[in-house]
Amino acid sequence: MSLNEDCSSTDDIRSDEPLSHAQTVWFNQPLLLERGGQLPKIRCCYETWGTLNADASNAILVCHAVSGDSHAARHNANDQPGWWDGLIGPGMSIDTNQFFVVCPNVLGGCRGTTGPGDLRAEDDLELATSPNQPIPGVSINSDERSPLEAMSRQGGGDERPYGADFPRITIGDMVEVQRRLADHLGIVKWRAIVGGSLGGHQALQWVSRYPNCTHTCIAIATSPRLTSQALGFDVIARNAIQTDPHFHGGQYYDRPNRPVTGLAIARMLGHITYLSVAAMEAKFDPDRHDPRHIASDFEQRFSVGSYLAHQGQKFTTRFDANSYITLSMAMDLFDLGGNRLKLMETFDECTCDFLLVSFSSDWLFPPAQSREIVNALTALDKRVTYAEITSDAGHDAFLIARDMATYGPLVQERLRSSDTHRGVNLSAGDAVSKGQSPVQLTVAEESILEIIPAGSSVLDLGCGCGELLAAIRDRHAGTPMRLMGVEVAQENILSTAMRGLDVIDYDLNNGLPAFIDDQFDVVVLNATLQAVDNVVALLEEMLRVGKKAIISFPNFAYRALREDYVTRGRSPRAVGEFDFDWHDTPNRRFPTIADVHDLLIEMGVTIDREIYWDVSQARHIDADDDPNLNADTAVLEIHRS
Amino acid sequence: MSLNEDCSSTDDIRSDEPLSHAQTVWFNQPLLLERGGQLPKIRCCYETWGTLNADASNAILVCHAVSGDSHAARHNANDQPGWWDGLIGPGMSIDTNQFFVVCPNVLGGCRGTTGPGDLRAEDDLELATSPNQPIPGVSINSDERSPLEAMSRQGGGDERPYGADFPRITIGDMVEVQRRLADHLGIVKWRAIVGGSLGGHQALQWVSRYPNCTHTCIAIATSPRLTSQALGFDVIARNAIQTDPHFHGGQYYDRPNRPVTGLAIARMLGHITYLSVAAMEAKFDPDRHDPRHIASDFEQRFSVGSYLAHQGQKFTTRFDANSYITLSMAMDLFDLGGNRLKLMETFDECTCDFLLVSFSSDWLFPPAQSREIVNALTALDKRVTYAEITSDAGHDAFLIARDMATYGPLVQERLRSSDTHRGVNLSAGDAVSKGQSPVQLTVAEESILEIIPAGSSVLDLGCGCGELLAAIRDRHAGTPMRLMGVEVAQENILSTAMRGLDVIDYDLNNGLPAFIDDQFDVVVLNATLQAVDNVVALLEEMLRVGKKAIISFPNFAYRALREDYVTRGRSPRAVGEFDFDWHDTPNRRFPTIADVHDLLIEMGVTIDREIYWDVSQARHIDADDDPNLNADTAVLEIHRS
Repeated sequence: MSLNEDCSSTDDIRSDEPLSHAQTVWFNQPLLLERGGQLPKIRCCYETWGTLNADASNAILVCHAVSGDSHAARHNANDQPGWWDGLIGPGMSIDTNQFFVVCPNVLGGCRGTTGPGDLRAEDDLELATSPNQPIPGVSINSDERSPLEAMSRQGGGDERPYGADFPRITIGDMVEVQRRLADHLGIVKWRAIVGGSLGGHQALQWVSRYPNCTHTCIAIATSPRLTSQALGFDVIARNAIQTDPHFHGGQYYDRPNRPVTGLAIARMLGHITYLSVAAMEAKFDPDRHDPRHIASDFEQRFSVGSYLAHQGQKFTTRFDANSYITLSMAMDLFDLGGNRLKLMETFDECTCDFLLVSFSSDWLFPPAQSREIVNALTALDKRVTYAEITSDAGHDAFLIARDMATYGPLVQERLRSSDTHRGVNLSAGDAVSKGQSPVQLTVAEESILEIIPAGSSVLDLGCGCGELLAAIRDRHAGTPMRLMGVEVAQENILSTAMRGLDVIDYDLNNGLPAFIDDQFDVVVLNATLQAVDNVVALLEEMLRVGKKAIISFPNFAYRALREDYVTRGRSPRAVGEFDFDWHDTPNRRFPTIADVHDLLIEMGVTIDREIYWDVSQARHIDADDDPNLNADTAVLEIHRS
Repeated sequence: MSLNEDCSSTDDIRSDEPLSHAQTVWFNQPLLLERGGQLPKIRCCYETWGTLNADASNAILVCHAVSGDSHAARHNANDQPGWWDGLIGPGMSIDTNQFFVVCPNVLGGCRGTTGPGDLRAEDDLELATSPNQPIPGVSINSDERSPLEAMSRQGGGDERPYGADFPRITIGDMVEVQRRLADHLGIVKWRAIVGGSLGGHQALQWVSRYPNCTHTCIAIATSPRLTSQALGFDVIARNAIQTDPHFHGGQYYDRPNRPVTGLAIARMLGHITYLSVAAMEAKFDPDRHDPRHIASDFEQRFSVGSYLAHQGQKFTTRFDANSYITLSMAMDLFDLGGNRLKLMETFDECTCDFLLVSFSSDWLFPPAQSREIVNALTALDKRVTYAEITSDAGHDAFLIARDMATYGPLVQERLRSSDTHRGVNLSAGDAVSKGQSPVQLTVAEESILEIIPAGSSVLDLGCGCGELLAAIRDRHAGTPMRLMGVEVAQENILSTAMRGLDVIDYDLNNGLPAFIDDQFDVVVLNATLQAVDNVVALLEEMLRVGKKAIISFPNFAYRALREDYVTRGRSPRAVGEFDFDWHDTPNRRFPTIADVHDLLIEMGVTIDREIYWDVSQARHIDADDDPNLNADTAVLEIHRS
């Protein structure tokens, strides 16, 4: 895909124009910083969309990434584009007709909220000249000047911008400022906190520090901490800025030159890390030796060179070098834990549900990192949905229109809830009224449905489109049940999630390492056994994770198959699960009822219940009626002491 | 793996000491450069190991990578380490007891051969002060001064180092200098040209420009051109150097300060690209927040930061900034073609055989790029062996001891040849004398061996350890036969290559896109059909690529299996290929003779010959004796008009 097709990455839509709908509030109580020191007062610049409802229960906090700002979306048709227009707006996945959306500029930034470019004087000139009456602790002031313009104000005496003396801040400090904003707006608990990349770090920091702060946490293209590789790139970027001859220890605001070269180089480096290899090839290979010429002293021998020169220079007109250092350092210090136990400690008390999304070609925040978080949340038995979206767009994907169209529905579904009792099952009526077809179950699924008691916690491995889980929920509507699916096919993950079910993106051939012993009352493997490579390993895992397990499978010793094989001497075929050619059947294993019984006995497993069907003849087969011959389908409920 | 365990990457062994065994020769004829301009005379600095034999047939050219030099290996036990000690030496894979090994510093470098740090005056001071009599066209001079020292010589008038005015050179220009060295040493044709990374570019450039220059081309961790991503990183690195305030347009040699900051930043960037993600995690994650403190102004907040600072600074003591620009630009301009047709044009006339090696975690020169070259060579019917080595060490792997131990034998085998008639089959005696066990064939393989005519070209898909190909070669020793294997398991690739056979690393489920129509007389799929996912696609490909195809497979309608299945009602088992549990059999497909016949008929294929065996009873089964029931093994020779 060409980046030109989707001008949705941050760079193509930003400008250094003033933020026309930005609001500003001053927090006059000092902010004690995590790493020491304090900021005497904080100016917070933010934008909002929609209306806060009467009980302040519909507020969504949107957190921006390192080079972003408060302008997440347009406010009207004539407004300049926002960086998440594909996700936020009237009728969009984050529906501003329904929710009150808040997006503040982060602490340490250069787009309105206090940052290194701000004056460090104790007396705040702003306060003295504000047309509004000062309110103790809080002041409202709208500053129409461009943020960069505001930064270049001259001051006498001590009134210099912080520059590189701006204290070292953390993601936690950013969260504290956002919390003050929430207080100011009268928001006690967010409906959701949403962010990608650095924004995802903020969302995760919020819930780890304030476990009850939100109903939902949506963390996209993010991680519990940067990889060492990403960290290395940030170190180099900062070195480039800080060794720029015009950096002057960060005190460059009143000088004729700014460290634009170093900042441009830092940005070029960032750019490569945001793009996938495939995206770069598509964009630059066709005219590799034909650079577009732009006004720049940077090298322009190759097309990628002129692109980087352009992007680097453009960035320096709208972003402050000290801010870049401050924010990248905050991101580099962010560390929720490098192993499962530490992550579990981090999220242990969270009461929210989670949605995590990663992108297959994102090598800066690789999917494996989202998976670390998902594994910890799963082991803690938190409500979580996780999807790794197939995409060519690299880390940028979370901002690209095409990818937003794919993962937006997950966000929308996660936000959809007509009642405040989280976890209560929606009725079948709700699903139908949303336009989904009523659930149609197979015979085996009907049997499984019958034997799962109300109130059970159920894990469905290879849950398909979630039809069985949805049927279980419908059957016991009114009784809270912990239901979770595991799937590996993207369309199935999306379909299951769109039913309002928790589902995680997982390859069963890797076992179930995310789950803990006896985590679920029932673990189901429905019509999936024949697709599994590591059968014994998976059965062992099911018996570990579930107090009981239910497996259903087609019986490859079914009479019709034996007859077909013996008479035709060919790979046997019959209707249903058996109706494939030998050379392209999706089936990987060919279990028979007798084989499975033998294996289970060998594994020391107890069979608590056996249900057999000849589905092709719509006939139930008794256990003493030679099911190995007469049944084409088996359902076994098992456990191991 | 920790980089500290294998101090074999370039950085840990380099020093800025003089190269004690370096020899120098002057080429006084101007060198016309590919991109225009010329160099009036060239000093070439090189090292040699071993002795050139009487007919000059044992010379091997070793080409170094961007920050390397002529010191590829120690000359004696007391010598400083060489960058390829794990590959070159007495009794090593490149055996200096047997071969005459030559390693020159590249044109544009800063380790003895003419580069940007050299004087650009027409009069060469060196020549005037040489103790030796000038020989027309060539002068010998040994320069004991350190190369960097030599670069800082002062000169009056026009005698300035080239600096950034050094003409733009290409890999082709480097090759021209090496060619002059070959002439000087009396070498008409190399036994082999070997190189990794940029050294691989040189090897490929040699053979594309001079198709008869060598018997063997060995190209490791390399590409037909850089990816756009790698190119982008190089552009940023050069921008960092060129914007260093001390760069002075490249004329810094007589100044108190050099552009060490920019060069260090360039090197830091390179470092990250040479390491795999896993290697960085192993090295830096455990003490991420505990940097070792070194004397540096670069950021040292994180362990990766102090490492990069150390590596960056160390590099500046031994490498020249202008050289870095010159060499990286040459690498960036290198482009043998971005598509198969162009690559085929490039290598069309080559008469050498090829060995290519890539490394799984190398993301700078990813394996897919080696595969592009392999595909072009294969379509040209060149002799080629290709292995993608599983490694955690990233691009650095080609210099790491552990990985050299894995791929070294491939190099050694490719160089081993007791006769100069390339392509003539080695006798079975040769193989046995090397300590390999005589080839033991299965019954099916014996049948296949019988029906392949002498002189056929044979492609064996899923060739295992190469036993069938070796047997074919032995059977027809004395008759040149084009034999090639395809395998996907690393140990099989290595075993097959160690028999002196060509083998390429390929997943048959992707078809055979590398090969052209009717490329081989016979394509064999021996005891592999049952492991293939895309059966029809592969059969189609075999029939396209081979004038005839031979498939052998176990017959899953064999009597014993039918009886077992019918009586026990379990997944059938029998001896041999059928002796697996249903739940972990490696078999993916379960063909029967009847099924395969039906499929072939459907595909319009003619069966030219059918051979059936009951191997378990060592009994041949006639085609009219119901082989579908009585045979456990089938061999079919087929073709399609």
